[in-house]
Amino acid sequence: ADGGPAVHTSPKVRWRLASSFPRALDTIYGVADTLAKRVSDLTNGAFTIRPYPQGELVPAMEVLDAVQQGTVQIGHTASYYYKGKNPVLAFDCAVPFGLTARQQSAWLVHGGGLELMRSVFADFNIVNYPGGNTGMQMGGWFRRELNNAKDINGLKMRIPGLGGEVMSRMGATVQVLAGGDIFPALERGAIDATEWVGPYDDEKLGFYKVAKFYYYPGWWEPGPSLSFMVNQAALESLPAHYRGVLEVAMAEADHDMIMNYDRKNPPALARLLEAGAQLRPFARDIMELARKTSFDLMEELAAKDAGYRKVYEQWSAFRDASYQWFNTAETEYAAFARQMMESKG
Amino acid sequence: ADGGPAVHTSPKVRWRLASSFPRALDTIYGVADTLAKRVSDLTNGAFTIRPYPQGELVPAMEVLDAVQQGTVQIGHTASYYYKGKNPVLAFDCAVPFGLTARQQSAWLVHGGGLELMRSVFADFNIVNYPGGNTGMQMGGWFRRELNNAKDINGLKMRIPGLGGEVMSRMGATVQVLAGGDIFPALERGAIDATEWVGPYDDEKLGFYKVAKFYYYPGWWEPGPSLSFMVNQAALESLPAHYRGVLEVAMAEADHDMIMNYDRKNPPALARLLEAGAQLRPFARDIMELARKTSFDLMEELAAKDAGYRKVYEQWSAFRDASYQWFNTAETEYAAFARQMMESKG
Repeated sequence: ADGGPAVHTSPKVRWRLASSFPRALDTIYGVADTLAKRVSDLTNGAFTIRPYPQGELVPAMEVLDAVQQGTVQIGHTASYYYKGKNPVLAFDCAVPFGLTARQQSAWLVHGGGLELMRSVFADFNIVNYPGGNTGMQMGGWFRRELNNAKDINGLKMRIPGLGGEVMSRMGATVQVLAGGDIFPALERGAIDATEWVGPYDDEKLGFYKVAKFYYYPGWWEPGPSLSFMVNQAALESLPAHYRGVLEVAMAEADHDMIMNYDRKNPPALARLLEAGAQLRPFARDIMELARKTSFDLMEELAAKDAGYRKVYEQWSAFRDASYQWFNTAETEYAAFARQMMESKG
Repeated sequence: ADGGPAVHTSPKVRWRLASSFPRALDTIYGVADTLAKRVSDLTNGAFTIRPYPQGELVPAMEVLDAVQQGTVQIGHTASYYYKGKNPVLAFDCAVPFGLTARQQSAWLVHGGGLELMRSVFADFNIVNYPGGNTGMQMGGWFRRELNNAKDINGLKMRIPGLGGEVMSRMGATVQVLAGGDIFPALERGAIDATEWVGPYDDEKLGFYKVAKFYYYPGWWEPGPSLSFMVNQAALESLPAHYRGVLEVAMAEADHDMIMNYDRKNPPALARLLEAGAQLRPFARDIMELARKTSFDLMEELAAKDAGYRKVYEQWSAFRDASYQWFNTAETEYAAFARQMMESKG
């Protein structure tokens, strides 16, 4: 240290954060706590953010609305929950056969994605920031095996969002159930299958006890990115220093979530296998049909809406170039590592 | 905002950062600039870090020493450069057939890796933090094709570090050349092959002009993690607030680097292919021999040194569980995506 002390003032700022997630999804919900702690620490407690889990202030699917209206200054949610307002919002989170976690982060932060999405969020008086990623999700829990795409016909599956739309077009009867209602429905056979997240979160809901076939991959969410949504006026009212604190703390919390999942999922998968879960990859013809159905659906949306097309085309070019690169070193190494592990039995 | 302003003082602190990297490796070197800018912004210029590229203050391979001695307060470097001091330091960065970028981050930050590595770095009066990741590197540029493991015999290759030791055991003649000396050596046939980083950095050195076969994956560095090394006394002398600023800014810079590479590598690969580069995966028997040789080498080190064994065993258990998980959804999806792209020709 050298020189004399500088002095500056720190106005008190109190924000409320509405999360779309329950405390039980501790890895996802915890992102809000991580953010709040860091913001407070960096401002000696002058700028505080108080997180509220889903339902305490607003319902899970109305966090965007609450931020837009200024009921809360910030939300932590998934942009694809709001595709009814504008289908293009899904690109901020995940679309079927879209980007993996690393690709999604690169697209948002350095690939022009955030600029594109912010031009859409501006309609809602919101500035969006990346807010964590789960990594590739699992396909979910099935009471019976799926041998080919014909077995999707009549399958009763709990699967929300765009993945549900694709499954529905493939012949499934799609249901949307809240987390707590899934296990009893699966147990009594009211549904044949459910998707959720991945081993760590799935284990807590106990699906393996009533549906032992654990399918992968969750092609409808290859790398879902959650979002911090900040009310634009609230953001602009922050002193510049606090805005910097908020932004760096969001960046830290964003990365921390996937590191947490990557730490927690491996031992959870081992425990699930120990408890009798049977891993199954989706059959090739299911994957191919799902992929074609997904891109047909996105092409239809692009044909109907110039705003969707603008994002879709920029995103598609990024996606194609990105897969060409990941298909070399990353995928070759991963495929080799898998073969080595399988050959050990 | 509510309540009155709090007032606190900000002592001036001036740090110097020694980077092991030249400005020409702009994505890697840029991490130091990203860190410095954020630290200054968050403290209204009271805490500044001035980065120096390799050679300006200390040679590239002596950054650890400069931090240890307090010549600089912080360094940005690769821990495996210092395996001569203690071979276990390589786990802080990368070992052959080790962890991918996501796995390495998860191991360090939430998997007990940082605690283990810090107990080693304490011997050098250093506290280490993750400082960016390149992602899976490429295998490098070869003047002729390698058909099988026998073709490694007598191959003259520029490859430093543990990868070089493994290649040497496999029959290659290993050379270590600085970045600027590689192209002329490759051009005149003094070496047959060289590894470097990945498409974005490799393109700048022009290797494709004199060695068109571009092999993958770079199995000796599946996800190399660079490190910020902070002098322990300097860290402890920081006001608590500045330490928080430093830590959150390092976390941000750490993640930013791989997002940058994941943005820059795809178009660079497309340009290299356009310029005539020929992509080649390493033959299966080369991969298998390299893997066996690598683990034999690590087992030997573990047999000789209890400190190495302690880290290696914890790391191995993490690695095995992690691959079991990544082998499901992530790898299945990546393998499918690659087949879809290949089938389009």
